[in-house]
Amino acid sequence: MKPSSTTTSALNPGYLSRSIGPLHINLDRQLYNISHVLSFEQSEANQRLSSFIQKMFSGQVVNGTEQRPAGHWALRAACNAQAYPAPVSLLVNGRDEIELARQVQEHMQLFVEQVRSGRYTTPDGVRYDSILHLGIGGSDLGPRLLNDVFSKLELGGEDAMKIRFAANVDFHEMKAALAALNPKTTLVVTASKSFSTRETLHNAQHIFKWLDSAGPDYRGKALVAATCKPSKAMELGIPPERIFEFSETVGGRYSLWGPVSIGVRMVHGNLVFNELLEGAALMDGHVLQSKASQCIPTLLAMSDLYNLEQGVASLMLSPYDSRLSQLVPYLQQLWMESLGKGVNNHGELLYKPSCPILWGDVGTNGQHAFFQMLHQSRIASSVELMAIIHPNHDEEQSHQVLLSHALAQSEAFSVGRLNSMEELADTVNNFKACPGKRPVQMVFMDSLTPYSLGALLAMWEHRTAALAAMQNINPFDQWGVELGKGIAEQLEHSVPPGEAPAENPVTAHFINHFLKNAGQR
Amino acid sequence: MKPSSTTTSALNPGYLSRSIGPLHINLDRQLYNISHVLSFEQSEANQRLSSFIQKMFSGQVVNGTEQRPAGHWALRAACNAQAYPAPVSLLVNGRDEIELARQVQEHMQLFVEQVRSGRYTTPDGVRYDSILHLGIGGSDLGPRLLNDVFSKLELGGEDAMKIRFAANVDFHEMKAALAALNPKTTLVVTASKSFSTRETLHNAQHIFKWLDSAGPDYRGKALVAATCKPSKAMELGIPPERIFEFSETVGGRYSLWGPVSIGVRMVHGNLVFNELLEGAALMDGHVLQSKASQCIPTLLAMSDLYNLEQGVASLMLSPYDSRLSQLVPYLQQLWMESLGKGVNNHGELLYKPSCPILWGDVGTNGQHAFFQMLHQSRIASSVELMAIIHPNHDEEQSHQVLLSHALAQSEAFSVGRLNSMEELADTVNNFKACPGKRPVQMVFMDSLTPYSLGALLAMWEHRTAALAAMQNINPFDQWGVELGKGIAEQLEHSVPPGEAPAENPVTAHFINHFLKNAGQR
Repeated sequence: MKPSSTTTSALNPGYLSRSIGPLHINLDRQLYNISHVLSFEQSEANQRLSSFIQKMFSGQVVNGTEQRPAGHWALRAACNAQAYPAPVSLLVNGRDEIELARQVQEHMQLFVEQVRSGRYTTPDGVRYDSILHLGIGGSDLGPRLLNDVFSKLELGGEDAMKIRFAANVDFHEMKAALAALNPKTTLVVTASKSFSTRETLHNAQHIFKWLDSAGPDYRGKALVAATCKPSKAMELGIPPERIFEFSETVGGRYSLWGPVSIGVRMVHGNLVFNELLEGAALMDGHVLQSKASQCIPTLLAMSDLYNLEQGVASLMLSPYDSRLSQLVPYLQQLWMESLGKGVNNHGELLYKPSCPILWGDVGTNGQHAFFQMLHQSRIASSVELMAIIHPNHDEEQSHQVLLSHALAQSEAFSVGRLNSMEELADTVNNFKACPGKRPVQMVFMDSLTPYSLGALLAMWEHRTAALAAMQNINPFDQWGVELGKGIAEQLEHSVPPGEAPAENPVTAHFINHFLKNAGQR
Repeated sequence: MKPSSTTTSALNPGYLSRSIGPLHINLDRQLYNISHVLSFEQSEANQRLSSFIQKMFSGQVVNGTEQRPAGHWALRAACNAQAYPAPVSLLVNGRDEIELARQVQEHMQLFVEQVRSGRYTTPDGVRYDSILHLGIGGSDLGPRLLNDVFSKLELGGEDAMKIRFAANVDFHEMKAALAALNPKTTLVVTASKSFSTRETLHNAQHIFKWLDSAGPDYRGKALVAATCKPSKAMELGIPPERIFEFSETVGGRYSLWGPVSIGVRMVHGNLVFNELLEGAALMDGHVLQSKASQCIPTLLAMSDLYNLEQGVASLMLSPYDSRLSQLVPYLQQLWMESLGKGVNNHGELLYKPSCPILWGDVGTNGQHAFFQMLHQSRIASSVELMAIIHPNHDEEQSHQVLLSHALAQSEAFSVGRLNSMEELADTVNNFKACPGKRPVQMVFMDSLTPYSLGALLAMWEHRTAALAAMQNINPFDQWGVELGKGIAEQLEHSVPPGEAPAENPVTAHFINHFLKNAGQR
């Protein structure tokens, strides 16, 4: 009997190809094959997944440890009801969160238009020309990605406002951001789900002083907030009409669809942003109405699960498009914070990894950096290559070379190159052999637009949640980050100039080292 | 008997601390302990490593598959002979490559000074204000990292010239780079070891046309090359006096110390660059004269090897300094292209990974992105945290918070938090438990300067080579990248508008998909 996966891909190329709108995937070169897909449809994992999808889109609790539904999709549904093949709903304590999202979106669009048109002015009566976005993690990576891609799409009109991001409590980053900004003409967006994130509040305090340095009137008009805790934002002096609320059911790393991206709306316009939401709603509709063997995020999650079960705990993603250089950092949070769990939904310990490490870089750059390891070493990694069929330039030959490389790597990882019998006689030639048989999958997009980007990012959200549901883990909590936060708060009193002794002897040794080096530079 | 690693770290904090110049490491929280270190000193692996180091610094062949010495250190030794505790030499076919490096460096410094002072002018007699750097992989990541860090160090004088990089054959990147440049006042540095890199030559051809678009005289004065193949650069019309040669013994990913970084010298000055070389020479001296248990790169490589042997095939690096945001992408090439091999130096197949996946992001951003997975999931990853003791700003409290987080994460990864007996009775609390016992190591630097950066990057080169020597693999070749290159050359004739049929059926399916989508956008 021949190995079935080779047979399937060799005899039926395209058997594991699927398309929805501008997005196309192919899994012919993965480790699993169509028979696994069909038997998955009969499995308990698929029942769990179907039930999870139904629960999520009807507002039932899918985040058990926090007793919450997951409502990020409502930010898409709020303005794209027609994309949903069946009724969806999200009621939290009797409040219709879809309707709330729609209202906030309307309010936000009006304010964005006022800012862009110059009707909302500085105390001096001139238009705001810049935005400083404060936020970290889920309140940073999403807007940063969107702004980066939209800028590179050259949609027009970006020159009206510039935006700078400061996430880290490392003041070097803030210093660099402020160097490009004028406190008299900069709107400051503070994005924080809880409005209690240490880094963000620390940075906000600094920025208040910076605004005040321009004069007493500037702070009052410059502050904008995106949060689930409007009362906390008000305590900081942000007026209610410039606080844009989103639902507690929206996880930070799933929040880029809503108020957190208000700065991106200001720079690139509501129309562009709404196209992103439309693309995402298309993917929601696809997930709601497709059975597992036809559903793109589910098929990819199946492949991720199959690989995990074979001990493949790495997923290298390489988009062959330099405009997507921020995609991997964005997805690293979505993927690893959602899937990197130690217990299942019953609180039972897991005994193997529930999440492959996600990493990578754009092609062809990655080929010249770390593909060597993926081709020849014994590391077990899945490879996902993305390519955009139509570029946004006229250099046909460059694009032809780029696509050739994407297809060539796919083939090289899968097929490999073995030595001939003559070569095998001389071990020196072993250096050149590539074993192949790496699990490879391809993602193609017709072109890169706000719409296709929306579909792509929503696909990743659904794939993430599907892989969690299949494993019966919670993709919406992140309890593991609490311990470090707690210790850091204590250590602030120990790190110089603090003087409280650190309890842990190794930590105390480090602090002692800092003290000894206090004089040196 | 108590577990020995815990005992060592608890009773002897700082026992595995080592310092050289501005660099300090601590391995108390690693999986191995001092008894492993001492027994390593007696091992065959250490003999192999010592012999490797002696061979490398005396110019013997250490790159077996290409029958070459490894001479990147000669670029440091050329101007820092006093840093070397013993005589070093590099003769290739009777040619003294250290002397050659010294001469090229002198020639380069003169040209850099001419450009910076405005004595080397455009055909219109005005100074060059910009540089476009063309190169990919080892001819891109190094200069890109150096320029990024030096700019953020605010050393002064950077405003004189701006630099843009274009690596990818993806024309979107080139388009963005050119948008900021004027063909009449831009020097074009083409960096390619072989001067036959597909992407770089393709991009160079485009840039020739761009220069010619400004008028017939511009190309002749604008072209600069960094290469091991001066004759090939001359064939492209680059005049010999502006071709800066480096030795074939310098691997691309080890080449940032020489001509490849000429653009960085132009922007930031020879003095700054030479401080980088001095810091690197300090590390060379340290490696030449330290025994294994005192040698920083060797101790870190020992820890990497120990982790690999325990099945820990991931190394997450997080520098707690936003100025080092490009460090991970740079090191990903150095590390994984050097260590990701399938055979040893005898051509015998390896049966386990020789290289952990290196990935990560700056702290505290990583904490809000993927640390969740490292704290709680069953993934096996080593964690390396870096912190800079003295920042380059006066916001003492920000820096205190930043350092607190770095120390807190180190403690949290190592110590963890177990549930109390009461909590264990209620499985819901399992969500909060962090098992700890992650292998953690700390790297501290007194401050971030060109000198300390040089020491850090040379440390990573030595650590990489040491881990290779311990495993008896070749850190200087990269045969695994050839297969994909070869297939890509063939496929250029098949990807539209090419028409040659692709041999592989899955690849042919993809090309067919491109054709079907030719009309859509």
